[in-house]
Amino acid sequence: MIIVLKPHATREQVAQAVALINEMGLKEHVITGTERTVIACVGDERYKDLGALASFDFVEAVKPVLAPYKMASRDVKMERTVVPLGGTLGASVGGRRIAMVGGPCTVETRSQTFAAAHAVKAAGGTALRGGAFKPRTNPYSFQGHGEKGLEILADAREETGLAIVTEVMSLEQVDLVAQYADVLQIGARNCQNFNLLAAVGEQRKPVLLKRGMSQTLEEFLLAAEYVLARGNDQVILCERGIRTFEDYVRNTLPLAIVPELHRVSHLPVMVDPSHGTGKSYLVEAMSKAAIAAGADGLIIEVHHDPAHALTDGAQSLNPEQFKDLVASCRRVAAAVDREIP
Amino acid sequence: MIIVLKPHATREQVAQAVALINEMGLKEHVITGTERTVIACVGDERYKDLGALASFDFVEAVKPVLAPYKMASRDVKMERTVVPLGGTLGASVGGRRIAMVGGPCTVETRSQTFAAAHAVKAAGGTALRGGAFKPRTNPYSFQGHGEKGLEILADAREETGLAIVTEVMSLEQVDLVAQYADVLQIGARNCQNFNLLAAVGEQRKPVLLKRGMSQTLEEFLLAAEYVLARGNDQVILCERGIRTFEDYVRNTLPLAIVPELHRVSHLPVMVDPSHGTGKSYLVEAMSKAAIAAGADGLIIEVHHDPAHALTDGAQSLNPEQFKDLVASCRRVAAAVDREIP
Amino acid sequence: MIIVLKPHATREQVAQAVALINEMGLKEHVITGTERTVIACVGDERYKDLGALASFDFVEAVKPVLAPYKMASRDVKMERTVVPLGGTLGASVGGRRIAMVGGPCTVETRSQTFAAAHAVKAAGGTALRGGAFKPRTNPYSFQGHGEKGLEILADAREETGLAIVTEVMSLEQVDLVAQYADVLQIGARNCQNFNLLAAVGEQRKPVLLKRGMSQTLEEFLLAAEYVLARGNDQVILCERGIRTFEDYVRNTLPLAIVPELHRVSHLPVMVDPSHGTGKSYLVEAMSKAAIAAGADGLIIEVHHDPAHALTDGAQSLNPEQFKDLVASCRRVAAAVDREIP
Amino acid sequence: MIIVLKPHATREQVAQAVALINEMGLKEHVITGTERTVIACVGDERYKDLGALASFDFVEAVKPVLAPYKMASRDVKMERTVVPLGGTLGASVGGRRIAMVGGPCTVETRSQTFAAAHAVKAAGGTALRGGAFKPRTNPYSFQGHGEKGLEILADAREETGLAIVTEVMSLEQVDLVAQYADVLQIGARNCQNFNLLAAVGEQRKPVLLKRGMSQTLEEFLLAAEYVLARGNDQVILCERGIRTFEDYVRNTLPLAIVPELHRVSHLPVMVDPSHGTGKSYLVEAMSKAAIAAGADGLIIEVHHDPAHALTDGAQSLNPEQFKDLVASCRRVAAAVDREIP
Repeated sequence: MIIVLKPHATREQVAQAVALINEMGLKEHVITGTERTVIACVGDERYKDLGALASFDFVEAVKPVLAPYKMASRDVKMERTVVPLGGTLGASVGGRRIAMVGGPCTVETRSQTFAAAHAVKAAGGTALRGGAFKPRTNPYSFQGHGEKGLEILADAREETGLAIVTEVMSLEQVDLVAQYADVLQIGARNCQNFNLLAAVGEQRKPVLLKRGMSQTLEEFLLAAEYVLARGNDQVILCERGIRTFEDYVRNTLPLAIVPELHRVSHLPVMVDPSHGTGKSYLVEAMSKAAIAAGADGLIIEVHHDPAHALTDGAQSLNPEQFKDLVASCRRVAAAVDREIP
Repeated sequence: MIIVLKPHATREQVAQAVALINEMGLKEHVITGTERTVIACVGDERYKDLGALASFDFVEAVKPVLAPYKMASRDVKMERTVVPLGGTLGASVGGRRIAMVGGPCTVETRSQTFAAAHAVKAAGGTALRGGAFKPRTNPYSFQGHGEKGLEILADAREETGLAIVTEVMSLEQVDLVAQYADVLQIGARNCQNFNLLAAVGEQRKPVLLKRGMSQTLEEFLLAAEYVLARGNDQVILCERGIRTFEDYVRNTLPLAIVPELHRVSHLPVMVDPSHGTGKSYLVEAMSKAAIAAGADGLIIEVHHDPAHALTDGAQSLNPEQFKDLVASCRRVAAAVDREIP
Repeated sequence: MIIVLKPHATREQVAQAVALINEMGLKEHVITGTERTVIACVGDERYKDLGALASFDFVEAVKPVLAPYKMASRDVKMERTVVPLGGTLGASVGGRRIAMVGGPCTVETRSQTFAAAHAVKAAGGTALRGGAFKPRTNPYSFQGHGEKGLEILADAREETGLAIVTEVMSLEQVDLVAQYADVLQIGARNCQNFNLLAAVGEQRKPVLLKRGMSQTLEEFLLAAEYVLARGNDQVILCERGIRTFEDYVRNTLPLAIVPELHRVSHLPVMVDPSHGTGKSYLVEAMSKAAIAAGADGLIIEVHHDPAHALTDGAQSLNPEQFKDLVASCRRVAAAVDREIP
Repeated sequence: MIIVLKPHATREQVAQAVALINEMGLKEHVITGTERTVIACVGDERYKDLGALASFDFVEAVKPVLAPYKMASRDVKMERTVVPLGGTLGASVGGRRIAMVGGPCTVETRSQTFAAAHAVKAAGGTALRGGAFKPRTNPYSFQGHGEKGLEILADAREETGLAIVTEVMSLEQVDLVAQYADVLQIGARNCQNFNLLAAVGEQRKPVLLKRGMSQTLEEFLLAAEYVLARGNDQVILCERGIRTFEDYVRNTLPLAIVPELHRVSHLPVMVDPSHGTGKSYLVEAMSKAAIAAGADGLIIEVHHDPAHALTDGAQSLNPEQFKDLVASCRRVAAAVDREIP
């Protein structure tokens, strides 16, 4: 941590800052510049509340030196993490193979879910997504089938071998969802629901962690750290678009986060181009772009009849569109030395 | 809802859209313009998934006519809602009197909490805020004292008569927090934790609902609608800053939402200038501005020793600063025909 | 400037960084921490391209210590700058008196302009705004009357004594506009048109500099520095709203910039609540809020018949609304020890 | 245009709105819904100021039906526009071949420029970028060599056959720059400098129009419309990143704009991953992603010695990195049925 003092800070004020730094267990290093005095602090600042120093009115700025996350960073683990997803098709995320995960936003009926599952498998996908519990912005919208939905998903796994990815929305659902699902998804709206993050950290199933729509990269990795810190090292990061002023998309999909996450973290990175654009006609282009940027997997909404989907019809692909998408992604994957089966 | 078709949409496509509109229970009204065909839909669109129509590739745009919330809107209730806060000082939000709520970010110790409570009361405040359960971005940060913290808060009410405002972070805390607190606060990070919103909707205590840091006004009112729809009509909206590109503040505080919320909703509106700026030296100016903009109350972080606060030291005021703030706010309140006791 | 090296940076790499630092005329100070090596640089970094250091792949981050502007900062001038506006009514910005500037978006006709001028003066305003050259997003929209518009404005000054504030859009208009106007306005879209900033810096008339809609505070003050550096020390900063995800307003008006600019700069600060909200029904509330936040002046769109305004009808007030606004602002001004005549 | 009235709008108010609609030359179509009255307007609304209607206090919302640009849209031209760039290597943008444009941010010296030009050509590039006039945020930074820089660029074309792309910053530079350059670049900061857009519209050279950092897609196409409306139909759109809350990049690069622009416009689309990320280590990944998303060309900063670049060192590639980048882009191009020579 670097502390920049205001011009004309007195000797007493420097001493006051140093005292607080020492209280925190850090060692100070005072540098008197031509226009400002700067105090560099030596030691592990990750567990300190740096804001306290900013409360002194003679402090101009406090600049951290270390990223606040640790277990998610490459400082502690250089090689890339590979997370097996479950199912019987050998699905995994983080290696040379790119994981294609598809399925409906919401589990509506058994036949709708099975139709999607067969379409996903036929196209080359290895995991099925589908919501049994649905976070809906509108209280009057359909909220999901709950456990019945989980059963349908498990049956679809039975039939197809696809791994099951489904969202867990709150603490008391964790055990139930973990009984049925292969991968526990934490949705963007829960990205800072810290109790929930800690709870899935106690499970021994992979966690697919979606970035919040206004979460910084650092906050995203701190959310991962919550899960890792509880002993669950199977975390998959998933970019799904951020909120900006852009209005031709539901969210802005910032793909540069893919190579940046690979640079600072060892965790695998997926991309959700369905939520990331909100428009079915943009999904294929952004899927190819995500793979070219280095994504380790894609998660895509597929519905056999988007016009009658109960949720997210505007961003869902039909089976044929999904098949074409996987085929064109396969070619891009090969061009960046990756593989889609 | 208005549906704009692409140029050259065929008669069959118009019929297909009309069929889906009718399936939704709406009546269509087809208008053939010089460059586009437009279909206006008559009926209550609030409970429909408008995205489904957007999945047709001959549809250019779907434009809703009605706001998706209802109970929170002035369409159903013209007069402004006043919410009593509890305590023995007659605290309430939404009338001529402006509610001043102060207190520490976190309940650290009994003496720290009591120091804050006495300072708040002495300055003219009517409610005490303080966190017993803390949502922390960093898993290694202090997470709050839980029930012990709630007991300290209740004791502070006993001693001072201040109403108690404290955050409830997850479903299983709701009953516990409701036993101690007068007002249940839903934090910005839980603004779309819909299960939690529904649960506090079952309570019969006021709910202070903080806007999420990237929540639109419409989403904010839909979150309120979740609480209202369960029968709890004591909802207080609270702006606490949004995430933008600005970097001299922790959040950007968009005060125009105060008169806009008053225009479209009957619910009272508070402002949190502490989180809304993140800098103690900006809190007083923004408190005065919030009142001038029409805020019905303020919620402000107060700590007897900000440099040793366990959390949010950089944005906390000490008791003397809070006293000055209330005094200067009182003058602005009078200038807009409001009152601070 | 502080340079944070990556872990495992070698001795040779440290030497390479130090060599470049010395080339820049700065002195290095190497601090070996427990996890990172940090190099603090002593000297005036303001004229250096700090990006060059970031091009080394062993550098993790480069953190500036000094703000890059100088003449606009309180480091060089502690007392607040007062800028006289011209006209015969003693208008000025930056002292105890708050300047109320009103007028139409565009000079349409002589009678329309005179109607606005008389309304502004009657309400207590001291300067008239009005566009002769209009930056229009749409090439098919009305582009302004040019010099004829300037003549009308000058005649309105003759008749009322109001100072004239009008926008200069490009380099070759500077001399012409300066002949007629009292205050040269640089619009938000030209906030980084550096040639134009330099050109108005050569003039000896006050410059009203509007913040760009995505300009950081630092970039805003650097734009002011362009003007100041050419010898024109009469710069007025004007916040007019930033672009964010919010959709109930045309722009988000971040009033915390008012006290922050006063903290770091000696220049006076105005606010434009008309563009800052884009909605006439929000202008009065935000005008009061701006004054409560410490604004030194307001600039507001006034039109005698908003429904027939050629531009910006949605955000214009009619004369009666403006009169009410000034009256209510006068009360708030008194409550913060300021004055509106 | 659709006008939504407030509930309880009277018959007189409807008549008032209709009168104004008819004044605008549009035909009204009044639809009385269950909760709101809606007026659909038939006719070409593109040249009207829709804000005027919003000034009525009984109007709730005004929703345009047509995009405000026309010549840039696919409504008037379905086939894609191909723009030849000049030089002797057959460079063009918009066809099957992807244009690779490289070069330094700033023309510093003849040898530096020639080094970059040879590197660009050797790697497979067909055009050289380089700034003779530089828009610098900081008034104390190097501002470019002006005409001398243009001469060096022209000499580099002579030697290599590369087309020359360079920025024109203001009106009075247009003729001068057009004498030397093949492609006139309008920088992001001038994206709404409408006089300048009109001036390059009078030229008969291709215009490379960079998106402003907070420009909406609609505003971007309106800026293109300015150029097209003056008779210059050789406009190349270029995405270079937008300003958001993200802080690990200089700008957020929203690649979904590439397929969206192709969907609504016939103009070719380039991407600038150097400004679009601001970090040299992210440029290659985002270059591949841009091509996979459908970009028609890339413009990339290349400098033989980034650590000593006068500007933008942090985002410049050295010649070897650029060569690798083109090679890996070539493979992705083939995978999406495009070609890089």
